[in-house]
Amino acid sequence: MTMESWKGLEDTPVKFQKKCIDTIRFLAVDGVQKANSGHPGMPMEASDLAYLLWTRNMKYNPGNPAWANRDRFVLSAGHGSMLLYTMLHLTGYDLPLEELKNFRQLDSQTPGHPEYGCAPGVETTTGPLGQGFATGVGMAIAERYLAGLFNKPEFPLVDYHIYALSSDGDMMEGISSETASMAGDLGLGKLIYIYLDNHITIEGDTAITFSEDVAKRFGAYNWHVQKVDGYDLPAISKAIEAGRNEDSKPSLIIARTHIAWGSPNKQDTAGAHGSPLGEEEVLLTKKNLDWPETPAFLIPEDVLAFYRQAVERGREAESKWNKLYADYRKQYPELAAQWEAMHQRPDPSLWEKDLPQFSPDQGNIATRKASGQVLASVKPHLPGLIGGSADLAPSNNTYVKGFGEFKTDNGSNIHFGIREHAMGTVLNGMALSKALIPYGGTFLIFSDYMRPAIRLAALMELPVIYVFTHDSIGLGEDGPTHQPIEHLASLRAIPHMTVIRPADAQETVEAWNVALTHGKGPCAIVLSRQGLPVIDRNRYASASGLQQGGYIVADAENGKPDIILMGTGAEVHLLIAAHEQLKEKNIGARVVNIPSWELFEAQSEEYRKQVLPNDITVRLAVEAGSPFGWERYTGTQGKIIAMERFGASAPAKALFNKFGFTVENVLKQAESLLA
Amino acid sequence: MTMESWKGLEDTPVKFQKKCIDTIRFLAVDGVQKANSGHPGMPMEASDLAYLLWTRNMKYNPGNPAWANRDRFVLSAGHGSMLLYTMLHLTGYDLPLEELKNFRQLDSQTPGHPEYGCAPGVETTTGPLGQGFATGVGMAIAERYLAGLFNKPEFPLVDYHIYALSSDGDMMEGISSETASMAGDLGLGKLIYIYLDNHITIEGDTAITFSEDVAKRFGAYNWHVQKVDGYDLPAISKAIEAGRNEDSKPSLIIARTHIAWGSPNKQDTAGAHGSPLGEEEVLLTKKNLDWPETPAFLIPEDVLAFYRQAVERGREAESKWNKLYADYRKQYPELAAQWEAMHQRPDPSLWEKDLPQFSPDQGNIATRKASGQVLASVKPHLPGLIGGSADLAPSNNTYVKGFGEFKTDNGSNIHFGIREHAMGTVLNGMALSKALIPYGGTFLIFSDYMRPAIRLAALMELPVIYVFTHDSIGLGEDGPTHQPIEHLASLRAIPHMTVIRPADAQETVEAWNVALTHGKGPCAIVLSRQGLPVIDRNRYASASGLQQGGYIVADAENGKPDIILMGTGAEVHLLIAAHEQLKEKNIGARVVNIPSWELFEAQSEEYRKQVLPNDITVRLAVEAGSPFGWERYTGTQGKIIAMERFGASAPAKALFNKFGFTVENVLKQAESLLA
Repeated sequence: MTMESWKGLEDTPVKFQKKCIDTIRFLAVDGVQKANSGHPGMPMEASDLAYLLWTRNMKYNPGNPAWANRDRFVLSAGHGSMLLYTMLHLTGYDLPLEELKNFRQLDSQTPGHPEYGCAPGVETTTGPLGQGFATGVGMAIAERYLAGLFNKPEFPLVDYHIYALSSDGDMMEGISSETASMAGDLGLGKLIYIYLDNHITIEGDTAITFSEDVAKRFGAYNWHVQKVDGYDLPAISKAIEAGRNEDSKPSLIIARTHIAWGSPNKQDTAGAHGSPLGEEEVLLTKKNLDWPETPAFLIPEDVLAFYRQAVERGREAESKWNKLYADYRKQYPELAAQWEAMHQRPDPSLWEKDLPQFSPDQGNIATRKASGQVLASVKPHLPGLIGGSADLAPSNNTYVKGFGEFKTDNGSNIHFGIREHAMGTVLNGMALSKALIPYGGTFLIFSDYMRPAIRLAALMELPVIYVFTHDSIGLGEDGPTHQPIEHLASLRAIPHMTVIRPADAQETVEAWNVALTHGKGPCAIVLSRQGLPVIDRNRYASASGLQQGGYIVADAENGKPDIILMGTGAEVHLLIAAHEQLKEKNIGARVVNIPSWELFEAQSEEYRKQVLPNDITVRLAVEAGSPFGWERYTGTQGKIIAMERFGASAPAKALFNKFGFTVENVLKQAESLLA
Repeated sequence: MTMESWKGLEDTPVKFQKKCIDTIRFLAVDGVQKANSGHPGMPMEASDLAYLLWTRNMKYNPGNPAWANRDRFVLSAGHGSMLLYTMLHLTGYDLPLEELKNFRQLDSQTPGHPEYGCAPGVETTTGPLGQGFATGVGMAIAERYLAGLFNKPEFPLVDYHIYALSSDGDMMEGISSETASMAGDLGLGKLIYIYLDNHITIEGDTAITFSEDVAKRFGAYNWHVQKVDGYDLPAISKAIEAGRNEDSKPSLIIARTHIAWGSPNKQDTAGAHGSPLGEEEVLLTKKNLDWPETPAFLIPEDVLAFYRQAVERGREAESKWNKLYADYRKQYPELAAQWEAMHQRPDPSLWEKDLPQFSPDQGNIATRKASGQVLASVKPHLPGLIGGSADLAPSNNTYVKGFGEFKTDNGSNIHFGIREHAMGTVLNGMALSKALIPYGGTFLIFSDYMRPAIRLAALMELPVIYVFTHDSIGLGEDGPTHQPIEHLASLRAIPHMTVIRPADAQETVEAWNVALTHGKGPCAIVLSRQGLPVIDRNRYASASGLQQGGYIVADAENGKPDIILMGTGAEVHLLIAAHEQLKEKNIGARVVNIPSWELFEAQSEEYRKQVLPNDITVRLAVEAGSPFGWERYTGTQGKIIAMERFGASAPAKALFNKFGFTVENVLKQAESLLA
């Protein structure tokens, strides 16, 4: 047992400190035991750290979890959720004890892993390892960016820290390496991360696979690294203080801790990670730590009173800030107006007049290029629009000239480096500020590298925008390693995700408008590398149809088509050309463009049936990606021209020919369907 | 210009060395220029290193690229593919000069990024950054494992190095961190990685985002790290030698290099990364390096003769090894037989009699548990079967008792740590040995973390097996962060991927049989956390139907069903129960189990129509994942009971009720369809 090594603070009676800490420990233990499911080891291990953070270090207001200038706490080791719920309850957030007893039950506010939006005070959804660690880096970028925009001498409007509790999993996942490297490079001094160095993972001692020198590694990333005993409260306090004083580097405090601290038989064992202690061991642990065996969920009155001081402390802190803000508002009314606007849903009327307009006489325009123009046109109206690319800015057209670089002059252009996953998580962290609209660009294929982050953006319904260019075999010579096939399907399958693949430059304008304003989770704008004609909207339906997700671009003259041709993106041009040729043969073809399945599915059934009437079953879909999913619209009797295999390396035109993405093949397949 | 700093080897005339190196440089330059597409900067930068590796350090036989004991070369910076093609041609692999001229053209052997199987000598597909670096770690694990199995005193049958050229992207991607940590932990001394430290990425100087201390970081991973000037040949040679002499640590040689070395206007610029130099700059560069301006693709005769010595050198090296092997075969006939068997497709008759058999009287069995039993039963027959879990072995049931640990006693159980992506890439590297059948386990949800590696396994059609457990909301309390929704669809959409979701323990046996023997790329076995009944195969169709991918489990008594109920995995049990209840109401329901869409699609049209006849359009699909894609089988008139949203945290049963995965709801939906 390591209990003897415990060391309390000097300014508080030791016995009371222990009581306060053990209250946390046993609320978590009892919660997991009652649920008969969960991870008791981590809360037991980190109760002391949580006690310090919530009573000494962190600035927060339980009465207003949305207070903009609060410190952020990230439980990157999300499996220890009971620790977080316990702290939120104890410090007076609106999370009743009943919810702690309801841990991991249907419709409770206390799910197995912390979920953003479920309980007040949960700053981000965590559980998939490394994500919390990484998201916090995005939070710190947001803090610095907002501070740079708004702070004035005497007015530190934005000035908060991001605290996190991380575990071995966070250290091992590559995503923490990517974001740690980025945080060190940017010198994000507001990060105070504590690593629970407990030497235990599910499969056993970390020594079975994890022998690297974490301190040295983070030193290499240019972090401020300290090592402490996780139960030496004065030492931890000092380390946190030192971390806060180090403004120019992120801090990692490596705390040697013990999983299931205090459990006579389970401490320092993997068995305490993912299973309840068991009734018997719960009792033995209570006995061991001199804690009353009953009742469960015991919160001594003096302990509760002590923790609940946070309510008044928080109220005062926010009041003080509100006063600061009121004075700021007087002195800097324009900035204050901007601050307030940034916390609202963006108003498209602001930028409408500046949007580029595209017409067929401009010749071929790659939608990625059009996207760059749209971005440049909206950015002046959206100070909260911030982002960049994972080292592909010249290809993604994500760099906005004239708005500076984040690293060097607090501009809105970020260089994410060749770190797609980091980009995805950082976008999430920035979006959680509720003041920023973050965007990130890479090739569509590399969305694979950031899928865990994309999924969390969708789960949290964050307004993140992905600029995924090079959207098909149309990228040509780079070959199958760079040509997305399954990616449209894979993204469309994610709940709360909006995928938009515009057919031309003008639809790209519409796509950005949707992405900036729809407010229903992340949006992926999927763009071509190759130049595409601009559809003649005098002749065909308006690009604004994109907002319905799917719309009739061209129709049979009598409105009663013999066949429906459908597709997205670049392939829509093949359909339009085929439509014209079929017309000459007196065959009525309707062209249905479905740039966003999600937006289309959100329309009324009436509208959808108008576009795709049940009785027209002769249907051909064309998309230069996997056919997977298209049967939703073609039915079992339709045909799909798609990529049933990986691509190949060759000039784009050769590939389109090889794989049948030609007007000739569309006609051939259409005619065989009609026959 | 840095040309002055160039330093040749002392044992060869300097002028000839330069000529040999510039031959490489300009073949690459001319190849990219002729294709008018590609990345000239990297080959120009690394020509000197390639010269050294192929003429001094590496052991290979151009006449037999499959020689088991060759050194492996991995071009992790895959965009520099022309460097590799150039070396393969020069050293006498079966890659004609014509193919270099055909760079990046349709059906050439020289695609934009190196593709395994396209040209002899390409050891692995690279291009997505970090993948080559990481795959090499798997190759080194394979080398050590095979050496441990087969080497005997005086018989170093398996003894080769893995060389790689890596770039900034490799250093920044999280996957290199995960695998570097693993390689350092395992002390994989056979790795000799060279990092081209050129200070340039696409967006500009690496300093814009990448200021970490790479040497220190790799030191922290327990690598042997050296720094050299990338154009000081004696120094590089010494460093490679030192790396080879360091048996217990992987080596990183940080070579300060210059992108587009020798180009007067493009050296050290991002412009030389992804675009041809341009005709003019090609000429200026040739002039600058005293190279004849014409013809393009010049290979001086003496240079070719020099490089082609590799053919004889390789023949001799392999002959020597063949002799060693012949002697080994005499002395250790059983081991030799095993060696040979491991290089063949595995023969299922070997393990058939040892496979577990499951019957309904055993009660509920989670398919993940059954999977563990199958693995244990086949492992004794398959020394090449090697794998583990990303720290979830007790949950994935991937640990095979009695076969030791790889790290400590060269056993076949690997602890991948909390590094799913590393696991995916390491599996690829091991499979490339052609002697091993690697498997890796994690929760299905975390397949997201390894998608880039899964995709490469599919692209290379490697026999990798994924054991993805906790396959649905059936995992219960861990909640939506851990509950896969879109994952089945996302995996099914990948070409060359086989996904199998068995419905019970007996089908799990069949699934493993397919995975071990089908030989058509990677296979994901998707398994339940929760216990499932064993289907009574006396009453219903045999589990061997799984091999067809989809089959009729139960049918209407007259064989003419009123409705088809279809599904996979756990949900099949709901369908069977519904079938029975419908029978009592005189409604004939066919139950179609489609555990593997890919296997089903590979059947004859006749068989598929037999299972799903066109004229039965009343169809209901049930799967506890995204409905995405199911319209393929239900048609537009059918229904799908699926997850249209993310899951929730609660006991599994509560979730199944909430989301409609009950016999009652199946009946309700079936009856509404029939009405």
